[in-house]
Amino acid sequence: MAERHDAVDVIITKRDGGTLTDDQIDWVVDAYTRGVVADEQMSSLAMAILQRGMTRAEIARWTQAMINTGERLDFSSLSRPTADKHSTGGVGDKITLPLAPLVAACGVAVPQLSGRGLGHTGGTLDKLESIPGWNAAMSNEQMLQQLESVGAVICAAGSGLAPADKKLYALRDVTGTVEAIPLIATSIMSKKIAEGTGVLVLDVKVGSGAFMKDIDSARELARTMVDLGTDAGVRTSALLTDMSTPLGRGIGNALEVEESLEVLAGGGPADVVELTVALAREMLAGAGVTDVDPADALKDGRAMDAWNAMIRAQGGDPTAPLAQAEHVHEIRADRDGVITRMDALGVGVAAWRLGAGRARKEDPVQAGAGLYLHRTLGEPVKAGDVIATLHTDTEDRMPRGMQALQEACGGEGAIEIGDSAPDRVIVMDRIGTATH
Amino acid sequence: MAERHDAVDVIITKRDGGTLTDDQIDWVVDAYTRGVVADEQMSSLAMAILQRGMTRAEIARWTQAMINTGERLDFSSLSRPTADKHSTGGVGDKITLPLAPLVAACGVAVPQLSGRGLGHTGGTLDKLESIPGWNAAMSNEQMLQQLESVGAVICAAGSGLAPADKKLYALRDVTGTVEAIPLIATSIMSKKIAEGTGVLVLDVKVGSGAFMKDIDSARELARTMVDLGTDAGVRTSALLTDMSTPLGRGIGNALEVEESLEVLAGGGPADVVELTVALAREMLAGAGVTDVDPADALKDGRAMDAWNAMIRAQGGDPTAPLAQAEHVHEIRADRDGVITRMDALGVGVAAWRLGAGRARKEDPVQAGAGLYLHRTLGEPVKAGDVIATLHTDTEDRMPRGMQALQEACGGEGAIEIGDSAPDRVIVMDRIGTATH
Repeated sequence: MAERHDAVDVIITKRDGGTLTDDQIDWVVDAYTRGVVADEQMSSLAMAILQRGMTRAEIARWTQAMINTGERLDFSSLSRPTADKHSTGGVGDKITLPLAPLVAACGVAVPQLSGRGLGHTGGTLDKLESIPGWNAAMSNEQMLQQLESVGAVICAAGSGLAPADKKLYALRDVTGTVEAIPLIATSIMSKKIAEGTGVLVLDVKVGSGAFMKDIDSARELARTMVDLGTDAGVRTSALLTDMSTPLGRGIGNALEVEESLEVLAGGGPADVVELTVALAREMLAGAGVTDVDPADALKDGRAMDAWNAMIRAQGGDPTAPLAQAEHVHEIRADRDGVITRMDALGVGVAAWRLGAGRARKEDPVQAGAGLYLHRTLGEPVKAGDVIATLHTDTEDRMPRGMQALQEACGGEGAIEIGDSAPDRVIVMDRIGTATH
Repeated sequence: MAERHDAVDVIITKRDGGTLTDDQIDWVVDAYTRGVVADEQMSSLAMAILQRGMTRAEIARWTQAMINTGERLDFSSLSRPTADKHSTGGVGDKITLPLAPLVAACGVAVPQLSGRGLGHTGGTLDKLESIPGWNAAMSNEQMLQQLESVGAVICAAGSGLAPADKKLYALRDVTGTVEAIPLIATSIMSKKIAEGTGVLVLDVKVGSGAFMKDIDSARELARTMVDLGTDAGVRTSALLTDMSTPLGRGIGNALEVEESLEVLAGGGPADVVELTVALAREMLAGAGVTDVDPADALKDGRAMDAWNAMIRAQGGDPTAPLAQAEHVHEIRADRDGVITRMDALGVGVAAWRLGAGRARKEDPVQAGAGLYLHRTLGEPVKAGDVIATLHTDTEDRMPRGMQALQEACGGEGAIEIGDSAPDRVIVMDRIGTATH
């Protein structure tokens, strides 16, 4: 009875625009995790937070309270510094795959706890699971061992880190409260801080294919997370990067692994290489490594060696052929010109419909499904050229993928051919550790 | 799955300041009542409504949707017009007791569905239940029969009227969303419209002892409810009345019945008489009865006759002695002067602590508990005079009642003696049927 009344007090404080005390935050997060604060109370509070916002101090305390509901990892026994990267999610965003072994090859350990995809954005674990034999589940001990021996690990986050977040995220998903910036920031950062990384680089996506559609919201989220990480003793910075166009040419699980291998072999699409190197430089600089150029490690094979070691250490066969979809459909240009729009959201939804993504977390994904963009933004085409191929194992998904492309951009279509395209800027801004 | 996604769409529409469609409102109210929309979704929506408000059309549709979840009563077969009164709740507010028989004595039937008290405001049924034998539960048929024979009935609202409201009110109570004006208005009006009265007069209380502390919020709530009733075909008006001071001298169940009997006998405190007559005039005018002065019916015994008939028809003995509390404590003046403050909230909380009210709906109440104000606002006192007596059956509640009086008004105390008191205005404003 007493505890129930406390919940209403906390809700009313935030509802009326007040600031929650440290005690209120500690209590409500813990009591919600224990089931003492009910779902209907937390969802009402989440909506009040969405409407009224939170101060920097409230956000920091909320994050700490979420961390306190679970365990913390500790990498201080490692012989190398640690750095991690988190992306807010995009279309064709396979950057973690080449980035983790690249940074490891440059002398910094990368403990990359990743997730599976939901909706139109893919998940790093889904991509790696298209490699035969590769296993996402690791114990904390296995993780530490692999970080020492190989220098990079990409695995599933255990349920022990910030269990409050898992419960709260599921609640926000069904109550229209996903979009609260303080709650997005605390959700991401509670897990990253609990993970125990020394350096954290955030890739905050902006554009149609991203969660943040405009740069101002993205900057607010980035600033909030950088402050949070800094306050918790993690060297944190953020790059704001373009997600109005998919990254690279391959969108889909095996298609993205293939493209990552091209990058690790010193080739690959320019945008993927640019972003991989930019993020690697941020991570290395955060860890104090400034005398190594990651671009060199892509060209001389060191990053590929680290990749092979990382995949093998987790049971995968890096030489095994990747899955290919059973059905392929070509989209051709109907005129000469240049690609003036390749909409990330439209392409992402198409890949999802083709089987690369899932609508619910228990759905399976197809390893071979997705799109390959033979032409992307700014590239010339002639009438009849193949612009893109659609891939799926399920023939009746093909028209749904086509429809997603056609219905994108308010019915104007995901792909547009015109006379001239604007220059594309991949890294739009950087937000570094700083105090207000 | 489809239904769940609809709930999130509805929440997001309101969250972002949009207007809900008729279909969305019909669906979400019905689906919540059926349990398809979950509590945590409705509480998030309620918080969004509290923050963003609702248009007049949304409020009207929401009310209709709540009515549609249950049955409607029909008094059209009666030989007399019907009029009902609803008070938003106050301290010492026994007006329904003399008002219902008074209006019946003037030729208009009064179907008064009432509730029990919660917190510092009393409930009409609790008051009447201090009369030996009186029974609050009636079937619809019994109600109709008594309206025809006696002209007035005060009874418990059955669970058949707007069941959505019962579920939603319980949810709002634990999720910090009670204070949303659109939801207060729809909660009250759905039941009053479903009840089928032809005329409705709202007594919207303003002041420390009321739900609405300031006149602007009270006016907004009154305007919203008058519009709602009017749109639904009920002749509706509202009086905004003072609740910074308790009504009358008796506060507590049997104490309020006694005072009501004084009023029905042509006496009683001036403020109670003034408000009873003002509300009776509103109800009679709404029903088209303008040639009868209710003040006369109090003086010549017709109202008392109707009271006796009404109490007897529901099994009560109007001549039986009322309960008296076992313990009485006197509060005396410490100086000469006039009463410059008799705070309604402080007195209401004191009566509650003494046993007149309840904290949870399953708690019992004491018939004899409460306060009697020998002096109230504006009245002269001499040092040593008894200002008030506190009544309770439970001796250890006495210090809690005293403490409530002392702690009122931020620690300045509920009762203040000074040199001159401002004139008290009981009826502060009237809001009639009108279009925007």
